[in-house]
Amino acid sequence: MTPAQHTLGAIAERFGLELRGDPALRVDGVDTLANAGATRITFLANPRYRGQLAGVGAAAVVLRAADADACPRACLVASDPYVAFAKIAALFERAPAAQPGVHPSAIVAAGAQVAAGASVGPYCVIEDGAVVEDGAVLGPHCVVGRDCRVGAQSRLVARVTLVQDVRLGKRVLVHPGAVLGADGFGLAFERDHWIKVPQLGGVVVGDDCEIGANTTIDRGALGDTVLEDDVRLDNQIQIAHNVRIGAHSALAGCAAVAGSATIGRYCLVGGGAGILGHLTLADRVTVTAMSLVTHSIREPGEYSSGTPIQPNRQWRRNAARFKHLDEIARRVGAAPKEPES
Amino acid sequence: MTPAQHTLGAIAERFGLELRGDPALRVDGVDTLANAGATRITFLANPRYRGQLAGVGAAAVVLRAADADACPRACLVASDPYVAFAKIAALFERAPAAQPGVHPSAIVAAGAQVAAGASVGPYCVIEDGAVVEDGAVLGPHCVVGRDCRVGAQSRLVARVTLVQDVRLGKRVLVHPGAVLGADGFGLAFERDHWIKVPQLGGVVVGDDCEIGANTTIDRGALGDTVLEDDVRLDNQIQIAHNVRIGAHSALAGCAAVAGSATIGRYCLVGGGAGILGHLTLADRVTVTAMSLVTHSIREPGEYSSGTPIQPNRQWRRNAARFKHLDEIARRVGAAPKEPES
Amino acid sequence: MTPAQHTLGAIAERFGLELRGDPALRVDGVDTLANAGATRITFLANPRYRGQLAGVGAAAVVLRAADADACPRACLVASDPYVAFAKIAALFERAPAAQPGVHPSAIVAAGAQVAAGASVGPYCVIEDGAVVEDGAVLGPHCVVGRDCRVGAQSRLVARVTLVQDVRLGKRVLVHPGAVLGADGFGLAFERDHWIKVPQLGGVVVGDDCEIGANTTIDRGALGDTVLEDDVRLDNQIQIAHNVRIGAHSALAGCAAVAGSATIGRYCLVGGGAGILGHLTLADRVTVTAMSLVTHSIREPGEYSSGTPIQPNRQWRRNAARFKHLDEIARRVGAAPKEPES
Repeated sequence: MTPAQHTLGAIAERFGLELRGDPALRVDGVDTLANAGATRITFLANPRYRGQLAGVGAAAVVLRAADADACPRACLVASDPYVAFAKIAALFERAPAAQPGVHPSAIVAAGAQVAAGASVGPYCVIEDGAVVEDGAVLGPHCVVGRDCRVGAQSRLVARVTLVQDVRLGKRVLVHPGAVLGADGFGLAFERDHWIKVPQLGGVVVGDDCEIGANTTIDRGALGDTVLEDDVRLDNQIQIAHNVRIGAHSALAGCAAVAGSATIGRYCLVGGGAGILGHLTLADRVTVTAMSLVTHSIREPGEYSSGTPIQPNRQWRRNAARFKHLDEIARRVGAAPKEPES
Repeated sequence: MTPAQHTLGAIAERFGLELRGDPALRVDGVDTLANAGATRITFLANPRYRGQLAGVGAAAVVLRAADADACPRACLVASDPYVAFAKIAALFERAPAAQPGVHPSAIVAAGAQVAAGASVGPYCVIEDGAVVEDGAVLGPHCVVGRDCRVGAQSRLVARVTLVQDVRLGKRVLVHPGAVLGADGFGLAFERDHWIKVPQLGGVVVGDDCEIGANTTIDRGALGDTVLEDDVRLDNQIQIAHNVRIGAHSALAGCAAVAGSATIGRYCLVGGGAGILGHLTLADRVTVTAMSLVTHSIREPGEYSSGTPIQPNRQWRRNAARFKHLDEIARRVGAAPKEPES
Repeated sequence: MTPAQHTLGAIAERFGLELRGDPALRVDGVDTLANAGATRITFLANPRYRGQLAGVGAAAVVLRAADADACPRACLVASDPYVAFAKIAALFERAPAAQPGVHPSAIVAAGAQVAAGASVGPYCVIEDGAVVEDGAVLGPHCVVGRDCRVGAQSRLVARVTLVQDVRLGKRVLVHPGAVLGADGFGLAFERDHWIKVPQLGGVVVGDDCEIGANTTIDRGALGDTVLEDDVRLDNQIQIAHNVRIGAHSALAGCAAVAGSATIGRYCLVGGGAGILGHLTLADRVTVTAMSLVTHSIREPGEYSSGTPIQPNRQWRRNAARFKHLDEIARRVGAAPKEPES
């Protein structure tokens, strides 16, 4: 496949960027500041990498106006170079070769509907009541269970399982190994053993969401588990039953949200962070990596828990003291505190 | 499929509940306190939701006697409303349509045994020496590896992998993406590189266990990794080689147990909690979410580690001080402490 | 299959161990110190289990010279008993029955190359441009995506997904559910919504690596995500885009490394530990379980964060005080500290 080619002038015009350099220069791809060769576009967004600008070999650099003078190559000036670069890079993406049609090895139940413009890959299994809308692409080994819906232009990359009653919006992208619609963890303890609480709800995913590899989103116990539009989940995230995540929120890898928690819009949850059940997070709350949220957060802002990384020897001495911190505080005459719940 | 219908009187009698209301009233499902309509049963167990009782629209509410007077609809009085509700909800579950028999696309080795009453779904692969007992149900894309056993009435929902020497008891429920019987992480370091320690044991899972989506349970290095009866594992849990988990224990999402740890009976492990290797937890130990257990626990009770969530600005000041906590403690004349191991 | 049999004398000679006992004694397997019967070899490496030595029933025990006198059975004396045992145990491993050839149900694209000596299991899907080298073994349900390479003698146990542009070295072992080459989590925020940053790089895995069940390794955004030779990853590990992990490093279950972090050689990362993005860890850094690394580490050594596990009641009092630790420190006249970043 011949790589796509574009001129700098065409790119600048398309994305409304100021070009400082030769508009006729042709480029055929993107690369990092350190590696980009003479036919590639690169970018500078993170100031951490500014030192690499002097030695850049790229055809052009997407950057802020303030950095343009220090750039020895053509510049594409953007107020947000990362956003501009994302759009430019998309020009050079090799499209997944998805031909419309159902692979002969796929098993589609009589009661399922697959749009003529959808693409269903090898060994997919589509069960009764399922709907695959136009332009949707299912890679190999996907399961679309009973009464699930894959919205138009959505893509299940490979080996995605939608168990039951999972409805995806449009342009949803789901990476391999994700499981949506498994039973929530509902247990009632009777005398000396557990009883399973039936999980009868579904999962609703809005438009333009992305769901990472091996991420799990459980079906609701009664109502649905909900991701509003443009929610972005990284890999290995766990979303328990009846969670609701507001539009435009993003969760980094290995974050976990316990049952019936509600996360606002435009929230950011760091990697490995946890949010306990039945809590509410306001809009625009940021939780830093590996923090544990144990109570609702009503105010936007950034929240953290944990202790800093230290050489183990120092850490051990400090950690031993933490076990007696209340006593230490009382010694210095600090006022009594409500114990943490 | 017409929904099941039951009268309140029949339900009260079946589960031994006191009914306050019309025994002839027919119901056709269950729902939340907030959403249940006039033909649905709901429940009130968590006091957090008591405020919703006045406006309830359900046919009947399962609740404690103390809440009955405040309920404007029929009441089903239970000492444990959540247990009673779990049983009632099961009446309305849509049964998975599992016909006995082996799907023509499934590959069953000559040396495997599949009971006539078992159901094996599309694209399953069952290897030599494997046994699938009567009433077991395998959804699509399951692999039952060499010398594995799926006990009677057990269910592998979809895309479950039993690698080798995995024996499941009766009525075990395994959700999609779970991997049982992969090699434990056994490494020996020789001079300048790793040597793999062969993993030769299996996995034994007792009756009535539930194993969540994308959970992993490794085979033992020599002996087996063991889950006793009625162990309940949520999603994305990691159980390392030669762990033993006592009957009726439950672990929430993303918990992890390192090699050769032994967890007692009736333990509760919170989401994201970790238990280091070779430790022992007594019966009835509770570990709160995201705590790390670094030594054996001999007494029942609740255990925690970590620090509270705070606005990041305050947290940063406190966290910086944690690095010098030993010095602070010495300043106030606290007795020296054994460093944490 | 008749189990392999070896004499103690042959084993001692093969691995250069001193034998104290009858060289003609035949053994047919390995087992734990507690369980090994009279035809089995066992080992003593962890002093924790020394008390079991007196009652050992094994044919022979692999142990250090210092423990030999206390052993009532034959001894195989080794400077590192665990390494020696690992090699001995490998003699008794039941080999996976992998016949060369492509299972008739596997779908191999016309533009893919599968070596004659490779084994491709049922329902595998191998896409255009993929290469499977000689002696490689693919269990059931593996996907080898476009332009991926599975090096000679590598093994994908079952249901492994290589999405695109993933190149595995020789003798790489990948456990079920692992996903390599999914898109990294690249997002740019434009005004009020997310834009996906195209992920165009690949994944490069060196020789002799092991990758655990349900582990995820994302493709690079531009350059590649790299594991050097002999890197060992346990289950459910998350490796983000453009991470680089140095040779001979090992990460325990549920560890996570954020984007563009660089980990040195011979590093050890404990279970559930996290490493933030764009950081660098020197060679021979050890991070203990569930610690979070928030800044680069330039010196070898062991590093930790977190607080010790305690009974919840005591923990709550101490945790409440942590929220005011800066104030406590100021009361005792400790010098002001730079807030933790």
